Amino acid sequence: MATSIARAADPDKKLNFALCGLGSLSTNQIAPALQKTKYCRLVGIVTGTPAKAEKWKGQYNIPVKNIYNYDTMHRLVENPDIDVVYVVTPNALHAEHTIEAAKAGKHVLSEKPMEVSVRKCEDMIAACKAAGRKLAVGYRCQFEPHHLECMRLAREKVFGDIKLIEAGFGFRIGDPTQWRLKRALAGGGALMDVGIYALQAARYISGEEPIMVSAMETKTDSVKFKEVDETIVWQLKFPNGVLAYCSTTYLVNGINRYTAYAEKGWFGLDPAYSYGGLRGRRSDGKEINEPEVDQFATEMDDFAQCIFNDTPSKVPGEEGLRDIRILMSVYESIKTGKAVKLA
Amino acid sequence: MATSIARAADPDKKLNFALCGLGSLSTNQIAPALQKTKYCRLVGIVTGTPAKAEKWKGQYNIPVKNIYNYDTMHRLVENPDIDVVYVVTPNALHAEHTIEAAKAGKHVLSEKPMEVSVRKCEDMIAACKAAGRKLAVGYRCQFEPHHLECMRLAREKVFGDIKLIEAGFGFRIGDPTQWRLKRALAGGGALMDVGIYALQAARYISGEEPIMVSAMETKTDSVKFKEVDETIVWQLKFPNGVLAYCSTTYLVNGINRYTAYAEKGWFGLDPAYSYGGLRGRRSDGKEINEPEVDQFATEMDDFAQCIFNDTPSKVPGEEGLRDIRILMSVYESIKTGKAVKLA
Repeated sequence: MATSIARAADPDKKLNFALCGLGSLSTNQIAPALQKTKYCRLVGIVTGTPAKAEKWKGQYNIPVKNIYNYDTMHRLVENPDIDVVYVVTPNALHAEHTIEAAKAGKHVLSEKPMEVSVRKCEDMIAACKAAGRKLAVGYRCQFEPHHLECMRLAREKVFGDIKLIEAGFGFRIGDPTQWRLKRALAGGGALMDVGIYALQAARYISGEEPIMVSAMETKTDSVKFKEVDETIVWQLKFPNGVLAYCSTTYLVNGINRYTAYAEKGWFGLDPAYSYGGLRGRRSDGKEINEPEVDQFATEMDDFAQCIFNDTPSKVPGEEGLRDIRILMSVYESIKTGKAVKLA
Repeated sequence: MATSIARAADPDKKLNFALCGLGSLSTNQIAPALQKTKYCRLVGIVTGTPAKAEKWKGQYNIPVKNIYNYDTMHRLVENPDIDVVYVVTPNALHAEHTIEAAKAGKHVLSEKPMEVSVRKCEDMIAACKAAGRKLAVGYRCQFEPHHLECMRLAREKVFGDIKLIEAGFGFRIGDPTQWRLKRALAGGGALMDVGIYALQAARYISGEEPIMVSAMETKTDSVKFKEVDETIVWQLKFPNGVLAYCSTTYLVNGINRYTAYAEKGWFGLDPAYSYGGLRGRRSDGKEINEPEVDQFATEMDDFAQCIFNDTPSKVPGEEGLRDIRILMSVYESIKTGKAVKLA
């Protein structure tokens, strides 16, 4: 893949981002984070809401020529001032917008979950590959220092071989009318939205890919959760013998953690997946106390460096696809009542 | 069932215990605990090891007439000075010794797990019923103030309805020659020995009986754990919609906890299942800080009161049987790779 940005020639050059989808995540997290990046700059937007376009134009000095809606975003191909499209639309629209951006010659950063089916993830990967552009998934925790320290403790076997991992993430979801509760847009409920963090943790702490999954679901509010899952527990077996047991829910606050139990001790984070204020503990009494960073800023700066240097992202489309494959197996196991073997 | 001890006539009367099986639990926990009870007294022993008989005789002033071995314990029928036999032998011998004691007209307290099969538990219940004697299982946590406080928080819905429970208990087992690692004596490994505490917690915190279980196992040390399970995770569904996800292991220390997540907050213990030093936390920042008791002493005093007053035990044989039924379903799910429905 050719490097599209000749950064060596201009060390102050920044990667130009367009945000696609101006919901609360873009508004409250990603746009502010872009102001804190070293290598990125917010220069464009894609939104279906003219009022938002107007507001963002003023707030972030977005040139009119860099403002698109979903009908016009194919014209990004004519705009050399935008390098990356960060897709922050509802889950089931990630493929459509990623493919559109890739066809327009843009690199793509897609929010998690990557999409709502394996097929759509594969289509996203194929489109970016065909366009010679990079694709990464917004797994912010993979760039967060507390998580990185836990990955190091695991990889360097500081407490010996890990044998067991518990991970859970959930919250009490509010507004019953939001897209996260609509199957057509979200593809699923708590599992797709926040369970994926627990799955990620189980994978990057075990350091392997699961070979078996089994799961169980309950629904206690069938009105609010008519279309999507409410509470799910699942368990994973890894080739190295690690077992992980995980949970997710849209019903209750407070579960936001993982713990890895190893031969000579344990370590983990609680809270683990918040935007800040993470806290880590180890069985030897030491705290896992790392610098606080803007997780979205570090994620975007990493992607910028991958593009500048033409190096692979640690969270490419293939990584997003791996999670979706496993999440679909979780749903399959719930449906069949059987453990599902993973390739 | 007739009250066998006319306590009303003598308020200082104590229930006379014989300990059957003088391993480390009897030696280090139960015999010292008997000295702290209000209503019990250690007066007899059943042991297959003459040297132990000699030692205990001296240490606890056991009259020679109250010293039995497994061949002579049927003669307990001739000994009115012993009211209760506390069966502390390996798991797979509980039925034999319970039935022997019941036939001799004694009440029986059996250590957990009650036995290694549903059938053997049923035989124990039937034998005690036929003898008109009480049978209880040594679930010490059910009498421990921190656990009782958690049960209260659950029952009174202090944080609203519980939706999700995580529970795990394991430790790194030492001596590879001990009976706990032999199938014929233990009936299983970590699950039978300590996983049962996590199962108990899930049951008494949810306040219901599970209707479905699925489980997964790994074995990373097939020499030490040739005969019994090493690490197991399992999940339970309850009729009220609560999901529990649980773990047990003989490989690692440090997992010793449960957390209940409810609509308006959470609470739990960590450590949860130790003999002392339990610590509880709640989402509102309050500590669950209850008096420390000798768990075996309270358990035995409770049984004594049940016998004095002819009231039902809260941990009768039927309670032990319920756990064994579920534990057997855990093994079945591991074997079949399917979720098992419970009646």
